[in-house]
Amino acid sequence: MILGHLTWPEVDSMDRDVVVIIPTGSLEQHGPHLPLLTDTMLASAVAEEVERRSSGDCLLTPALWLGASGHHLPFAGTLSATFPGYVDALTRTIEGLANQGFHRFFVVNGHGGNSEPNGVALRALKEARPNLTLVHCGYFEFLKTEAELVLEGPSKEMHHACEAETSLMLHLHPGLVKLDRAVDDGLEPSPKIVGLVSSWDQVSGQGAMGYPSFARAATGKRLFEAAVGGVVAQVSALRTGIVYVGFPSGS
Amino acid sequence: MILGHLTWPEVDSMDRDVVVIIPTGSLEQHGPHLPLLTDTMLASAVAEEVERRSSGDCLLTPALWLGASGHHLPFAGTLSATFPGYVDALTRTIEGLANQGFHRFFVVNGHGGNSEPNGVALRALKEARPNLTLVHCGYFEFLKTEAELVLEGPSKEMHHACEAETSLMLHLHPGLVKLDRAVDDGLEPSPKIVGLVSSWDQVSGQGAMGYPSFARAATGKRLFEAAVGGVVAQVSALRTGIVYVGFPSGS
Amino acid sequence: MILGHLTWPEVDSMDRDVVVIIPTGSLEQHGPHLPLLTDTMLASAVAEEVERRSSGDCLLTPALWLGASGHHLPFAGTLSATFPGYVDALTRTIEGLANQGFHRFFVVNGHGGNSEPNGVALRALKEARPNLTLVHCGYFEFLKTEAELVLEGPSKEMHHACEAETSLMLHLHPGLVKLDRAVDDGLEPSPKIVGLVSSWDQVSGQGAMGYPSFARAATGKRLFEAAVGGVVAQVSALRTGIVYVGFPSGS
Amino acid sequence: MILGHLTWPEVDSMDRDVVVIIPTGSLEQHGPHLPLLTDTMLASAVAEEVERRSSGDCLLTPALWLGASGHHLPFAGTLSATFPGYVDALTRTIEGLANQGFHRFFVVNGHGGNSEPNGVALRALKEARPNLTLVHCGYFEFLKTEAELVLEGPSKEMHHACEAETSLMLHLHPGLVKLDRAVDDGLEPSPKIVGLVSSWDQVSGQGAMGYPSFARAATGKRLFEAAVGGVVAQVSALRTGIVYVGFPSGS
Amino acid sequence: MILGHLTWPEVDSMDRDVVVIIPTGSLEQHGPHLPLLTDTMLASAVAEEVERRSSGDCLLTPALWLGASGHHLPFAGTLSATFPGYVDALTRTIEGLANQGFHRFFVVNGHGGNSEPNGVALRALKEARPNLTLVHCGYFEFLKTEAELVLEGPSKEMHHACEAETSLMLHLHPGLVKLDRAVDDGLEPSPKIVGLVSSWDQVSGQGAMGYPSFARAATGKRLFEAAVGGVVAQVSALRTGIVYVGFPSGS
Amino acid sequence: MILGHLTWPEVDSMDRDVVVIIPTGSLEQHGPHLPLLTDTMLASAVAEEVERRSSGDCLLTPALWLGASGHHLPFAGTLSATFPGYVDALTRTIEGLANQGFHRFFVVNGHGGNSEPNGVALRALKEARPNLTLVHCGYFEFLKTEAELVLEGPSKEMHHACEAETSLMLHLHPGLVKLDRAVDDGLEPSPKIVGLVSSWDQVSGQGAMGYPSFARAATGKRLFEAAVGGVVAQVSALRTGIVYVGFPSGS
Repeated sequence: MILGHLTWPEVDSMDRDVVVIIPTGSLEQHGPHLPLLTDTMLASAVAEEVERRSSGDCLLTPALWLGASGHHLPFAGTLSATFPGYVDALTRTIEGLANQGFHRFFVVNGHGGNSEPNGVALRALKEARPNLTLVHCGYFEFLKTEAELVLEGPSKEMHHACEAETSLMLHLHPGLVKLDRAVDDGLEPSPKIVGLVSSWDQVSGQGAMGYPSFARAATGKRLFEAAVGGVVAQVSALRTGIVYVGFPSGS
Repeated sequence: MILGHLTWPEVDSMDRDVVVIIPTGSLEQHGPHLPLLTDTMLASAVAEEVERRSSGDCLLTPALWLGASGHHLPFAGTLSATFPGYVDALTRTIEGLANQGFHRFFVVNGHGGNSEPNGVALRALKEARPNLTLVHCGYFEFLKTEAELVLEGPSKEMHHACEAETSLMLHLHPGLVKLDRAVDDGLEPSPKIVGLVSSWDQVSGQGAMGYPSFARAATGKRLFEAAVGGVVAQVSALRTGIVYVGFPSGS
Repeated sequence: MILGHLTWPEVDSMDRDVVVIIPTGSLEQHGPHLPLLTDTMLASAVAEEVERRSSGDCLLTPALWLGASGHHLPFAGTLSATFPGYVDALTRTIEGLANQGFHRFFVVNGHGGNSEPNGVALRALKEARPNLTLVHCGYFEFLKTEAELVLEGPSKEMHHACEAETSLMLHLHPGLVKLDRAVDDGLEPSPKIVGLVSSWDQVSGQGAMGYPSFARAATGKRLFEAAVGGVVAQVSALRTGIVYVGFPSGS
Repeated sequence: MILGHLTWPEVDSMDRDVVVIIPTGSLEQHGPHLPLLTDTMLASAVAEEVERRSSGDCLLTPALWLGASGHHLPFAGTLSATFPGYVDALTRTIEGLANQGFHRFFVVNGHGGNSEPNGVALRALKEARPNLTLVHCGYFEFLKTEAELVLEGPSKEMHHACEAETSLMLHLHPGLVKLDRAVDDGLEPSPKIVGLVSSWDQVSGQGAMGYPSFARAATGKRLFEAAVGGVVAQVSALRTGIVYVGFPSGS
Repeated sequence: MILGHLTWPEVDSMDRDVVVIIPTGSLEQHGPHLPLLTDTMLASAVAEEVERRSSGDCLLTPALWLGASGHHLPFAGTLSATFPGYVDALTRTIEGLANQGFHRFFVVNGHGGNSEPNGVALRALKEARPNLTLVHCGYFEFLKTEAELVLEGPSKEMHHACEAETSLMLHLHPGLVKLDRAVDDGLEPSPKIVGLVSSWDQVSGQGAMGYPSFARAATGKRLFEAAVGGVVAQVSALRTGIVYVGFPSGS
Repeated sequence: MILGHLTWPEVDSMDRDVVVIIPTGSLEQHGPHLPLLTDTMLASAVAEEVERRSSGDCLLTPALWLGASGHHLPFAGTLSATFPGYVDALTRTIEGLANQGFHRFFVVNGHGGNSEPNGVALRALKEARPNLTLVHCGYFEFLKTEAELVLEGPSKEMHHACEAETSLMLHLHPGLVKLDRAVDDGLEPSPKIVGLVSSWDQVSGQGAMGYPSFARAATGKRLFEAAVGGVVAQVSALRTGIVYVGFPSGS
C-alpha cells in the first residue's frame, strides 16, 4: 500500500500491524556518470518492489531524499540536511504514524551516510516509545553475497558510484546513466586508519569509488533481486512478530 | 533541468543565473476522495510542466513532501513536520545551492499551511544573504481569475479537497481520485472571526472544504494551464532580473 | 483588566472565559518621521482602548515589542528577534495563562512582519492544546473600509510609515511625529513578482512606503475608531463563544 | 535618549560611545498587594530617571518584561520565559545595536531571577565579541546602604514584595498598591541550606517575603534616589571608559 | 557510595533518600603554576572526602569536567562547554537518577563560572519536577571564615589560581603544582563597575588573580577541612530532610 | 601528555602536530558483576597506556563519561546524555583545541552506543573544518584477532559485560568485579532482523550479553595489550601524517 496514494479513511481502517517502510536516500554527487538522486532512486525502487510483492503487509511512505551528505558537498549539485534536521524529519514521519497506532517501522536506507543519523533517530524514538519495533538498514546489506558472485571488477563490495551501484541504475534507470563518462576511481588513506572521517574530495578524484567501468544491467538485475528478496524476508518476519530467544547456544 | 537527474559535472558547468524551483507540498488528508499526497503532486506537476516549458531557464529540485500539516493530524494518514524541521529542510536546500553560486530561488508551494514557514525560512535567509533573490507563493495564486470563470459549484475559490483541487487531480491523476466518495463539506465559525486558528476536525466533517461534487477534469485542465502560465511568467521575469521602480504613481 | 496592574489573587479569582489580548509590535525603522516603536504603540493603543470599552471581558498583557524585523535591519535603530525566539516568547505568554485555565487568546498585531511567526506560534499551540481558542490578526485588518474612505493620498491602503500609520500616530502621539521630515517613498519590483521577499533597503529610500505627506490627525482618529471597533466586535464574539456552522450555502 | 521615541536617522547619527541601558523585569506575582509588573516598573523607573539625568550619555531600550520566573508560576498571573528564550531576547537586543556600532551595554535588572540568565547571555556575547563592554546588575545593588538606614521593619535587606519594594511602589505607583492587603510573610528552610533552589509556594504563604506592612512612600523615595544615583555613577564611569589597574595593593 | 563503582542491582536496591552529589569543575587555565583540571580536582576531592565520611548517606557521581569557561578561552589549553550543552549534561545527570526515584541532589561546584548555568539547570528542573530537592553551591562557600584566618597574603578571599586554590592543590596534588612559576597577578577595572563581564585576558596577565606566592600546603589542609566540613553538614541536613519555618523573627 | 595536568603555558608552547586523544565512555549498567563506569574505565585505561608509550606524540583529554546510553536506561544506575548534548560536548572539546591550532584528533571509544553520535559529531566538524584530521573508533576494533585466540567461552566476539569485557576489568580493576554474581546472559531476536533497534531489557535478563563466567585476568591482559598496540600504531600513523593513495589495485 502506497501511503501517498491512499485517502485518510483508507488509512483509518487499515490493520495497524502492517510494516511501515520508509526509504531514505540522498541528493548527492555520484561521479560523472550517475544522477544526483541515485541513492533515493535505488532505495525507492527496492521499497516499491517490496511493497508490490508484500500484498498488503506493508505501507510505503515517500522517500526522504534530503540526506546527510555533508561529506559530498565539495562536489556541485550535492544538497545535505543538517543532522538535527534529518533526524527531525525521520522522527516526525515515524511519530505521525505511531500516533495513529502503527508500531512496526522499517527504514530502508539507500545512502551509507544516513546510517548514523538513522540510528540516532530510531534509538531516541525507542527510548521514548519502547513498544515500537524499529529497524533501519541499507538495502545493500542484503546483496553482499550476490555481489561476491556477480561483480566482475576488482572489488566485490558496494562502494559509491561503483560497479554495483552503476549496474543497479543500468537495470532500473538506464536513461539516466552516462556510462561513457564513468571513471574507475577512489583513493584510500595510507597507512590505513580505522575510523578516519574523510571528505569526498580527499578520497576520490571524480566522485566515484570503485569500478563502474565493469557495470552491466544484468548484474544490476541480480543485485536488485537480492536486495528485494532480503527486504521482503525481513518484512515478512516483522509482520509475523519478533520473539527473543536465548543467546548463541554453547555454555 | 531536473536537478536529481543531472550529474555533478553538469551542475558544475551550469549557468548560475537560472531560477531554482523548489516545490513544497504535504502528505495530509484530503477528504475521502483525494490521496494524501495531493498537494505534493499538484505542486510538482506545475513545477515539472514549468521546467519543460522553460527550456533551460530553471533548475527543478525534488519536492519537499513533509509539510507543515499539524492542523490536519486529527485525520488518519496525515504526517507533519515540526515548524523548525520544515524551515531547516527548506533552508538547507536553498543554502546548498546558494553555496554553489545559484542565487535565484522560487518556492512553488502546493499547501496553504506551508506559506507561513516558507516565509519564515526565506526571510531569515534574506537577512543572512541579502544578495539572494527569494520568492515563495502557492501555485494557486495564479489561477484565481480562471477559477472565477470555470468553477461551477457555489464557491469560486480554492479551498481544500474542493472543486478546484479535485478537478486538478482528475486532470493529472484521475486514477487516484475516488470521486464517488467525495462529499461537499466544510464548516465555518459563526460569528466570523478574522485570524482564527482552527484544527480541521473543527471545520470539516470529512476533511474537505468546498464542493468537490462539481469537479471535472476539463476544469482541472484549465486551472492547471493558468497555474503553469503564471509560474512560467514569473520564472521568465526572475530570469531577466528584477529592478525596483517608483511606488504607485500618483502624487 | 490590565494584567500587569493586577495582583495574583485578583487573577486567581478571575473568570477564565475572558479574552486574553496580547499586543505584538516591533522596534524598527519607520522612515525619517515616525519613532521606532510605532508598531508597538499602535497595537498597544488599540488594545488598551478595547480593554477600556470591554468592561471586564478581556485581560490585556503587556506588548511584545521585540518583533520579527530582520527585513528592516539595514536601517539604524531597528532591533529584531530571531524567529524561534519570537515564537518562544509568544508561546510562553499564552502557555503561562493557559496553564492557569484561560483558554481564549487574541493576538492583536501591529507589525505585518509578525504575522507569519504569530501563525507558526499559534498553530503549534493549537496542535498541542486543541481546546484553546487562538486568534491572531493585525489591527489594520479592521480599518480597510475606512481607509478607502478617508485616505487622501494616491494609495488607499495601509503600507509602512504611510499616510495611514502617520495619521494614527498624529492622533495618538503627535509629539513623536516629525512630520516635516516625512518623505513620500517606496519602490516596487518590476516586473511585479508574487511572493518576492525583499529587504527594506531595496523597497524604500528613506524607510517609508506610501504617502505620509497626506497624513492628518483627523484621519488617524477615524482609522483608530475603525480598528478599535473591529477588535471590540471580535472580542465580543469570542466572549460569547464560537460555533461552527455549515459552509457557504449553495449545494 | 529613548530608543523607541527616536527615528532611524536620529539613531544613525548618534555617538556610538553612549551607554545603552536595557531594563529587565518580570511579570510575576508580588504578594496580594503589589501588581504583577512590579519588577518591570521599578527597573524601568530607575532606568528612565537615569536617562533623564544623563543628558545624552545613554540610550534607553524598552524593558524586557517577560522574565525568568519559573519559581513563581505556582501563583496565578505569573508568566515566565524559557531560559533559552530569555537569553535569546536579551542577546538579540544587544546584538542588534552592536551590529550598528554601539559597544557599551548596561542591563539594569529589576528581578533577581533574571540575574543568572543575564550572566549567561552576556558571557556568551563577550566570548563572541570581546570588544563589547557588557554590564548587568540589579538596581537594588545600589540601595543596600540606604536600606540599612531607612527600612523600619525587622529586615534591612531587599527581598520580594517586601518593605523596600513596596515602598518603592508607593513612591512611584501608589495607585497600584493595595497596602491594606499586604501580609508580612516568608518561610525559610531549616536547617539553612546554602544554594537550595526553592519554588515560591515553598517559601511564602501569600507570595511575599519580608515586611511590607512597614512600607512608606518616603522610604521608597530615598531608596529610589539611592538606586538612581548608583546607576548614574556607573553610566558615567562607563561613558568615560574603563581601564584595568593592578589588583588590590598589598604584596 | 561511588556511583561509577556500583553495579546496577546495587543501585536498584539502594535507599532513594540518599543525597546524590554531583561535582562540577572545569578544564581551564589556572595561571602558569596550576594544572588545567584544578577546579575539577578540587571539587572532586571535596566530594570524595565527603562521601567517605558520610557512610552511606550519599551517592557520588563522576565530575562534570567540561565547564562553562568561555571567559578563559584566550589562554591555551582551556576547553569550554556551550551554555546549553553544559545545562543539558547536568540536567540529564539529575533526570537519569530522578527517573529512578532519587530526589535529593547536591551539585558541589568547583568553578565560579559554572554557578550561573548550574542555577539555570536546577531552576528549570525544579519548575518541571517540584518534588525534587535541588542544591548547588561552590565548595568554596564553606571555607570563607577559615580563609580569613589562615590566608597570609594581602587578600583573604578565594579568587583564581590564588593563595587559597594553590594551597589546596599543594595539600592534595603537590606533584602537579609548579610553585616556582607562580606569579601574584590580577587586574581590576577602574573605576569599579558592579556586574562588569570581563574576559580573563583583561583581568590577568598570566591567568591568576591573587597571591599564589603565599600558598602553603598547611593552609590548603585547613581550607580543605573547612570545605569538607561544610559540605558534610549540608549533606547531613539534606539527609534528615528540610522543613520550612517562619521568616526571620521580628514582627 | 595529560592535558588536565598541564599548565596553560605548557600547552601554549606545545607542538600542534601531536595527536589529541579523547576517550569516550558511559555510565551504564554492565550486568550484576561489573561497575557502571566500565566503558569509561576501559577506554581511559587504553588511552592512558597509549599516552605513556607514545612519548610526547599525543595529548590526552579527560574522558567523556556521560555517554549515549538510552537503551540501557531500564536498568538502575544508568545515566544517558541526549544525543544533541553528547554531540555538543564532543564537538566543543575538539573545537576548543582546534581553535588553538591542534588539528589531529582521535576519539578512542569504549561504548558501542557512542559510535553513531561520535560519527555525527566528527562528520559535522569535518564539513565545517576540512583541514582537521578526525578519527573515531572503539578500542575494541583492535582486539578482534586476539579475542578469537584467547576467549574461552562459546562466543569469540566482544559483546557487553561479556567474557572479554569482564576479563579486561579483572586485569585492570579486579577490586571492582563481583565475579561471583556474573551470569551468562543474552537474548536475540528470532528470526534475526538486520538493523533492529532494541532496548536492553529486551535482549538481556540481567544486563549482560555473553559469557562472563569464562572471564580471566590473563585473558584481559592479552586483550588489553592488543587494544593498546592497535591504538599506538594508529597514533603513530596519524603523527606521521596521512596520504591518500590509489584505490585497491586491480584494473
